Amino acid sequence: MRNQTLTLAALALTLAAGSAHAEEGMWTFDNFPIARANATLGTSIDQAFLDRVRLASVKFGGCSAGLVSTSGLVMTNNHCVATCVANLSTQAVNYAATGFTPRTREEELKCPGGSAEILTDITDVTARMQAAGQGLEGQAFTRARDAEAGRIEQEGCAGDATVRCQVVTLYRGGQFKLYKFRRYTDVRLAWAPEDRAATFGGDLDNFSFPRFAIDAAFIRLYENGQPVETPNHFTWKADKPVEGSPVFVSGSPGATQRLLTQDQLFTVRDVVLPMDQLLASELRGRLLRFAAESEENAFIAMDPIVGLENTYKRGLGRMRALVDPAFMARRAEAEVDFKARVAADATIAAAAADPWGALAAVQPVQRELYPAYALLEGQAGGGSALFSYARTLVRGAQERTKPSAERLPEFADSRLAAVQSGLFAERPVYPALEQVRLEWWLSKTREWLTVDDARVRALLGQESPEAMSARLASGSTLSDPALRRALWEGGLEAIQASDDPMIRLALAMQDDTRAVRSDWEARVQAPTDRASERLAAARFAAYGDSVYPDATGTLRLTYGRIEGTDVPGQRFGAFTTFGGLWDRATGSAPFNVAPKLLAARDRIDSDTVLNMAVSSDTIGGSSGSPVVTPAFEIVGANFDSTVLSQRNAYGYDRDVNRSVIVTTGAVTVALRDVYGMQGLVEELGVR
Amino acid sequence: MRNQTLTLAALALTLAAGSAHAEEGMWTFDNFPIARANATLGTSIDQAFLDRVRLASVKFGGCSAGLVSTSGLVMTNNHCVATCVANLSTQAVNYAATGFTPRTREEELKCPGGSAEILTDITDVTARMQAAGQGLEGQAFTRARDAEAGRIEQEGCAGDATVRCQVVTLYRGGQFKLYKFRRYTDVRLAWAPEDRAATFGGDLDNFSFPRFAIDAAFIRLYENGQPVETPNHFTWKADKPVEGSPVFVSGSPGATQRLLTQDQLFTVRDVVLPMDQLLASELRGRLLRFAAESEENAFIAMDPIVGLENTYKRGLGRMRALVDPAFMARRAEAEVDFKARVAADATIAAAAADPWGALAAVQPVQRELYPAYALLEGQAGGGSALFSYARTLVRGAQERTKPSAERLPEFADSRLAAVQSGLFAERPVYPALEQVRLEWWLSKTREWLTVDDARVRALLGQESPEAMSARLASGSTLSDPALRRALWEGGLEAIQASDDPMIRLALAMQDDTRAVRSDWEARVQAPTDRASERLAAARFAAYGDSVYPDATGTLRLTYGRIEGTDVPGQRFGAFTTFGGLWDRATGSAPFNVAPKLLAARDRIDSDTVLNMAVSSDTIGGSSGSPVVTPAFEIVGANFDSTVLSQRNAYGYDRDVNRSVIVTTGAVTVALRDVYGMQGLVEELGVR
Repeated sequence: MRNQTLTLAALALTLAAGSAHAEEGMWTFDNFPIARANATLGTSIDQAFLDRVRLASVKFGGCSAGLVSTSGLVMTNNHCVATCVANLSTQAVNYAATGFTPRTREEELKCPGGSAEILTDITDVTARMQAAGQGLEGQAFTRARDAEAGRIEQEGCAGDATVRCQVVTLYRGGQFKLYKFRRYTDVRLAWAPEDRAATFGGDLDNFSFPRFAIDAAFIRLYENGQPVETPNHFTWKADKPVEGSPVFVSGSPGATQRLLTQDQLFTVRDVVLPMDQLLASELRGRLLRFAAESEENAFIAMDPIVGLENTYKRGLGRMRALVDPAFMARRAEAEVDFKARVAADATIAAAAADPWGALAAVQPVQRELYPAYALLEGQAGGGSALFSYARTLVRGAQERTKPSAERLPEFADSRLAAVQSGLFAERPVYPALEQVRLEWWLSKTREWLTVDDARVRALLGQESPEAMSARLASGSTLSDPALRRALWEGGLEAIQASDDPMIRLALAMQDDTRAVRSDWEARVQAPTDRASERLAAARFAAYGDSVYPDATGTLRLTYGRIEGTDVPGQRFGAFTTFGGLWDRATGSAPFNVAPKLLAARDRIDSDTVLNMAVSSDTIGGSSGSPVVTPAFEIVGANFDSTVLSQRNAYGYDRDVNRSVIVTTGAVTVALRDVYGMQGLVEELGVR
Repeated sequence: MRNQTLTLAALALTLAAGSAHAEEGMWTFDNFPIARANATLGTSIDQAFLDRVRLASVKFGGCSAGLVSTSGLVMTNNHCVATCVANLSTQAVNYAATGFTPRTREEELKCPGGSAEILTDITDVTARMQAAGQGLEGQAFTRARDAEAGRIEQEGCAGDATVRCQVVTLYRGGQFKLYKFRRYTDVRLAWAPEDRAATFGGDLDNFSFPRFAIDAAFIRLYENGQPVETPNHFTWKADKPVEGSPVFVSGSPGATQRLLTQDQLFTVRDVVLPMDQLLASELRGRLLRFAAESEENAFIAMDPIVGLENTYKRGLGRMRALVDPAFMARRAEAEVDFKARVAADATIAAAAADPWGALAAVQPVQRELYPAYALLEGQAGGGSALFSYARTLVRGAQERTKPSAERLPEFADSRLAAVQSGLFAERPVYPALEQVRLEWWLSKTREWLTVDDARVRALLGQESPEAMSARLASGSTLSDPALRRALWEGGLEAIQASDDPMIRLALAMQDDTRAVRSDWEARVQAPTDRASERLAAARFAAYGDSVYPDATGTLRLTYGRIEGTDVPGQRFGAFTTFGGLWDRATGSAPFNVAPKLLAARDRIDSDTVLNMAVSSDTIGGSSGSPVVTPAFEIVGANFDSTVLSQRNAYGYDRDVNRSVIVTTGAVTVALRDVYGMQGLVEELGVR
């Protein structure tokens, strides 16, 4: 007892403003605070445990997932397979409505364009990457770094389609690691529940708890037409979870910005989020009305609306964090503490060379350039698949005429395989939906950049956004994957000879959009990267190695306990049950119980835990992350967090931070008692 | 010369942080800085001039206007008569498309529900009003003040339908004046151009300059079926305007918040504007898609979309002001200066009793209560006419059972005439549009207040917003003015017996919405009013009487010169011409020239000035304001300002502040050479 108390006291001392709190941090697997985690949770995990967890963790698109059988079976969230389900469905055979329930492996269907990967090796390449940028500024710095990353990736993985190499930036440039992945491009859907069972409460219950959603699904990894053998997998544990139990969550959280300075946060608060949210809000209005126009439109727009509403609500949570006086005061205090520590040490201060000042100087430029960068480059096309194909084809053709190191980084040799598999996959394209997206994007571009902007004039000519979007959506034939393959393989000559209107548009936009991108990279991205690197180094120097890197969409491990919260605006216990679901149902969408689930009501124990809350550090992108016990058992999949937890993007807050988990117990009930997936139940070894 | 220099030097000294700059201020007619204006402009106006200007200035709905003939003819903006035009139009006879061009007075048509008024008397009632609130706090304070205002108004105007009395709050409660208006309820449309002639460039050119819009129209005041005799009217002057000339602009600017403290500005920036804008943005998306669905929908939605886009763009300008570091730094400096002056004088400081602290304490409450207040009270119904009728009928019936002084202030005896004329006027109601607005409002209310809010549960029951809005829009018969009159006259008994679904909804909502309103008044409005009053008093004490009151939608006079600007983001000369309009036209909406205007092109001198910029202090609501010379000649009507000028809401900025004016020269060309309005041309005395 005494030792434990001492350990905790020592721990508390290290948890100053700039270092991590007890359960804080989205840690890399090669720098996980094993001792701290064990001390905090009362566990005794070791590096071998971490290695096993890593090798059973799967990245699937923007989501996370976990291996759960020896035959390549992987659990993730239903919302992670929603696009796959939509791509496999027609209005007549709509798996979102019925659930996807293959009775045999032969009935499992390949997700178009889907791929999954497992992180197998981590190598430090910091010295090489930092040397590459040495002495350079602006765009030359960015390009030299990108080129070096491309070379390292090519050296590590060239010629082998089953592996992928990625140079990962950590600590905002303080560290670079080469991540090597085992890659699987034949990923098949093995089970998905009815959409409403996974999305009960819809957007209204999204980012909240209590929650009542079976947001789970299974995919299976295939190779050479056979399920992949995966002896290292999590053990399925469907027992009733225990409040207060320690858990680890392994996944690829998307992005945090916890190292952002006050000035940078103000830019996000004042410029980036308001613009993004206002644009999303108008698109939402257009899509909701579009969906209400016909059954067909409702089918087409369902997946895009869910995705958009999710992004929008997340953004709203972030806006609220950035205008919360108490939260922002804590962030300001942390910066004061950090600056004081740097100033107190002349060596650290000299090396840091006032990164705050350098970042402050970037902000007016970023504020000025952001709208054009967002509309003409970052979010160009407004989510139109045709636009995205055309831009990839045009740029790909242009870039491939150059040596790999001189290309835009996404077209480096090491990345072409991924580009091609995205481009050649067969996915449905709906012209009516394309038109809505394109009209919205064109009209918002004209509005935000003004009609007198030369780039806007070049983009639209004398045409209205309404007329142009209709012409592009109905006239382009890029929905045909064979045509896309032919254009890709035909190279620049084929592109220049194409009379596809979307290809013509993408070609015509190249000068302007490349200039917008260059300007952004030279005047915003490069100086931000340089100063952030110094900031991260100063943080190491000031706080020691008790700091963790910002989330960047790469594999991390977090830890915490199964528990509720009790703070203003967020009071709830740790668990919900099927009984709670029945109670919350009104019969009106989105609070209608899915038909098959409702039909099984009598077979389901009302006390079975459906969802639970966990205190592990979280952010979007962790969706599907396996939640595992110290005994390597999987007890659930992370599928959400709360609106208040969105502040986690900018700073950890133990009081409000909660992940929302669908339990393996609930998934077992669904498979066995609702969807008749006896084969999977047996494969999982459920007793 | 020497005297003049001395005067200007003395003037400069008074223009410190807290006092008005040379051309700053939306002044009341009984406290206009005659000497300063004359010194600034080199003019020699006097109080007699001010009185004549006031008596020739007309308020029309939310707009301003000016008398231009002895027969009650009034010039305003086309956008100020847009709702009148929409109400008089059908899809078949669409005056927005064709223009409204009565050849005789008999063809002039009454604007449904339209009324106009002229400010005839101003009386100081500060002592009575302040005594009424003495010693009271919270809602008791608000109610006592409201009751006293009702009594004063009733004493001043009771029993005479041709006058209206209004107690006007100035300097945030520092002064109260009784304004007495001559009121005209028979207002007829005398001319409107084709809508596109008035809105060339649409939303894209709105709030910008250079500008090419004939945003003018004429109404005529009638009484007893005859045009009103108006011997005191501005002299029509259609000569080419001269850059640098001094002008006065008389109108009713809507609202400025220049006395807001830093903490209050942050609440607007962080909570109020983002929420309002996000909601508006989604409605915009819904309405744009709705309008694209059919010709009929396009006709129905045109006026609402224009209004919404105008409000949205204005909000965007304000958001930009509040996140502009330089602008906000100036505002912060002004507050520091003000606080220092107050602190430096113990008497002033004691009387002020830290109004900044008191207002700071209100902000967390306002931030918390704003969403419910906005959705359930301030913006309840989402602009649905049926909802608005129902709420007025229900509350009117409930309130009229009480003595006047105990009612909600809008139902005091002195205000019932205005309520009734709005309620009984015949206006078209479009169920499809009603449904869009109601669905949007119900779904956003559920989203922002959450589905678990008791008020939301009471509002929706088990029904979805989609189903409920359809039921209300198709089921209510309140579109019939005779029915509305019957319900009003039938009082509470008739209301309680009504089975109109909208009346049932409004009745059911009363407990909750009145509680929301009471809470807001007691915890936000009342403490804000009390502290603002002390703040305004301290400002008088600290800066003398060189301060002007915030705009409150009441008559003001501003002054300035005809001139362009040359600052980053806003560089333009003072004038545009018809030639510029031809050059800007692309043929695609909204840059298509209106057909009749285009047909007249050869008859129009391309060098004729179309629009011009003026430096007078401005804000929305000034639309239609007559722009007059020191010789009582009208040279144009204010119809807009710029996006950057929206910062004027929070603080005057001489560099960017510009009003946008349609010239009398352009209106003369339109009447004479385009629309064949020879009768009006002669009435205006054009040579």
